[in-house]
Amino acid sequence: MAEWLGTFSLLATVVGSGIMAERLSGGNVAIALMGNTIPTGAILVVLITIFGPVSGAHFNPTVTLTFFLRQEIGARPAGLFVLAQVFGGIAGVFAAHIMFDHPLIDPSTTVRSGLGQWVAEFVATFGLIGTILTCLKARPDFVATAVGLYITAAYWFTSAISFANPAVTIARGFSDTFAGISPVTVIAFIAVQLFAATLATFFFGGS
Amino acid sequence: MAEWLGTFSLLATVVGSGIMAERLSGGNVAIALMGNTIPTGAILVVLITIFGPVSGAHFNPTVTLTFFLRQEIGARPAGLFVLAQVFGGIAGVFAAHIMFDHPLIDPSTTVRSGLGQWVAEFVATFGLIGTILTCLKARPDFVATAVGLYITAAYWFTSAISFANPAVTIARGFSDTFAGISPVTVIAFIAVQLFAATLATFFFGGS
Amino acid sequence: MAEWLGTFSLLATVVGSGIMAERLSGGNVAIALMGNTIPTGAILVVLITIFGPVSGAHFNPTVTLTFFLRQEIGARPAGLFVLAQVFGGIAGVFAAHIMFDHPLIDPSTTVRSGLGQWVAEFVATFGLIGTILTCLKARPDFVATAVGLYITAAYWFTSAISFANPAVTIARGFSDTFAGISPVTVIAFIAVQLFAATLATFFFGGS
Amino acid sequence: MAEWLGTFSLLATVVGSGIMAERLSGGNVAIALMGNTIPTGAILVVLITIFGPVSGAHFNPTVTLTFFLRQEIGARPAGLFVLAQVFGGIAGVFAAHIMFDHPLIDPSTTVRSGLGQWVAEFVATFGLIGTILTCLKARPDFVATAVGLYITAAYWFTSAISFANPAVTIARGFSDTFAGISPVTVIAFIAVQLFAATLATFFFGGS
Repeated sequence: MAEWLGTFSLLATVVGSGIMAERLSGGNVAIALMGNTIPTGAILVVLITIFGPVSGAHFNPTVTLTFFLRQEIGARPAGLFVLAQVFGGIAGVFAAHIMFDHPLIDPSTTVRSGLGQWVAEFVATFGLIGTILTCLKARPDFVATAVGLYITAAYWFTSAISFANPAVTIARGFSDTFAGISPVTVIAFIAVQLFAATLATFFFGGS
Repeated sequence: MAEWLGTFSLLATVVGSGIMAERLSGGNVAIALMGNTIPTGAILVVLITIFGPVSGAHFNPTVTLTFFLRQEIGARPAGLFVLAQVFGGIAGVFAAHIMFDHPLIDPSTTVRSGLGQWVAEFVATFGLIGTILTCLKARPDFVATAVGLYITAAYWFTSAISFANPAVTIARGFSDTFAGISPVTVIAFIAVQLFAATLATFFFGGS
Repeated sequence: MAEWLGTFSLLATVVGSGIMAERLSGGNVAIALMGNTIPTGAILVVLITIFGPVSGAHFNPTVTLTFFLRQEIGARPAGLFVLAQVFGGIAGVFAAHIMFDHPLIDPSTTVRSGLGQWVAEFVATFGLIGTILTCLKARPDFVATAVGLYITAAYWFTSAISFANPAVTIARGFSDTFAGISPVTVIAFIAVQLFAATLATFFFGGS
Repeated sequence: MAEWLGTFSLLATVVGSGIMAERLSGGNVAIALMGNTIPTGAILVVLITIFGPVSGAHFNPTVTLTFFLRQEIGARPAGLFVLAQVFGGIAGVFAAHIMFDHPLIDPSTTVRSGLGQWVAEFVATFGLIGTILTCLKARPDFVATAVGLYITAAYWFTSAISFANPAVTIARGFSDTFAGISPVTVIAFIAVQLFAATLATFFFGGS
């Protein structure tokens, strides 16, 4: 439930602020991206802080995969988590569309692919899992802030407007807006994300 | 008294930075909104931190309603809190107008209504109360930061330039500026806000 | 010494980022102000945190006045503090001018005066002293962050591009740049600042 | 290893967000710089927090020099640290170039030199080492945040778009982008940085 509500809120923020920023920016994409980055980073810190004690605040199938590989969550709850995340994300996109009087379903046509984008997605996901696992050891009370700041940076250092999150990638497929992504490219992105998360789990798990 | 001063400061910041940002932005609304968002989020963290030990730092009738429904504040002090908030907010708008050599009373003509806006207001208020109640359980010392970050995000993910606060909604009715709202739409907004706060109190109260 | 170095760093940042932001902004003043606000808020948090245990990290004659009125600092050290702040501030302006290949002394011609500006300066200084005194009671470890966030907000909610600091006001008189202020208006500003600080000391001191 | 990965991540962020910000900014350099500043500050807080317990999180030869002069690290590990930083930084630039489909090696042609720039570089490095050494005494758990905020400010108050880091300076020589620097000016910058770090170590070391 917390996973559903959290991913719902995350996506409503990502897509809602994306629409808002695009509408207001007068065509300057850097300003629009800043108006998308600051709210996303802010809400992530809030959501992970408040839902952390309830569900662990994954909101992201690659994070659930990581804790499953580390045997800290069973296969069945992990599956339920991923389902909650995917449906929460899609509901969040719908909520953003309703709030901005946007058509409810509006498949994205932004094609994001090519070697650079896949490398970017790999780096972003690898870094996210590395940040979480290393920070859990170094300073567990700082994980929420670290993830918020990491994603703030990752929005800008990766060319993919980093998703690093299959639930976000799927949900964004429903939104042909600034924050959208074409459904055809969704599959490749998810494969790269899961591969990067698996590698990062083993790389940072042993140290 | 702390409620009066806090809501006064909040509104002076919201309306003052709204006027400043609009004047300087050269017509680019995304930049103006960023110049309205950052100061509002910053001052909220400060105000809630410094007035929290004095009055609880509500600054918002929906928050007072929530604590009244949870029987953590009596009917009489709750009523006084709401009065202090409303008059503090209006005084804050006046202060901002004086500082910027703006006419003192200047009813807003920005009409904000429609289904999308009401849903947005519902989501924003529900999320605000949820953030406060959940964070009070998860990490009480983080509430001030969580509310500041939540409102930072909510400015962008809701199309209403989220108020989520009846005292702010009323006070903004006196200001025909970037941050203003038409008096005719004030009533509907407040109804949605109180309804969302009541629902959120029961939804997050039992968990 | 810490007061000299701290006020030096503060002014070098305020004036330096003001010059940088103005040069790069392409005439959009809201962007320039954001590029002046974020660095100023950031460096304040750093300076107050690192110099707090050494000198108390005043960097501001109104703050020194406040602690003198509360009899927490003697007349003689208070006088030395103010001298260090004023000369540190002027040296900081010189450093910023050298770094940006700007003439060393360049009296500001920006006239900032009128009722609105004086009210703004009063509100800004009253709020600053109130924030410091209240935060010292509520959460002393948060003072550095509270002041940084307060000034971030005050840059936008006051029309004076809030100085709230006589050492900054004097130092800025030497700089005819974005962050400058005409020497003729310096005197009135300082009077308002000292008056506001005295009032705030008594208002917040007893509670 | 942590030094390699950390400096790699730092440079990938600095150069990646530099390219992204420049591409999107529509020619407004202040917006581009803000889009370069926010991610850099954010990732620094994350990297220093998570790698601090592993390697000390230097990511910067001047920091390693400082701890070597204070005899807190031996000559041999210090040399290995610097090597890891330099090669990590260059690899980070390559990663950013791949992610943005940019030519792999692309020597920078931006000539940054002159008295103002050297003074700026001196001030920036002196301030960075001062911040670290003073904060380690005043509040060790705040060092990561202090460095992130310091660099956020230094990006704007120095005309050199402050590097204050020889590994960053060398790595940026490989990138003819917004964040680049001409190889001819690299040597002078590094000399100034090492000189400033040595002075700062003795200045702040005894107090």
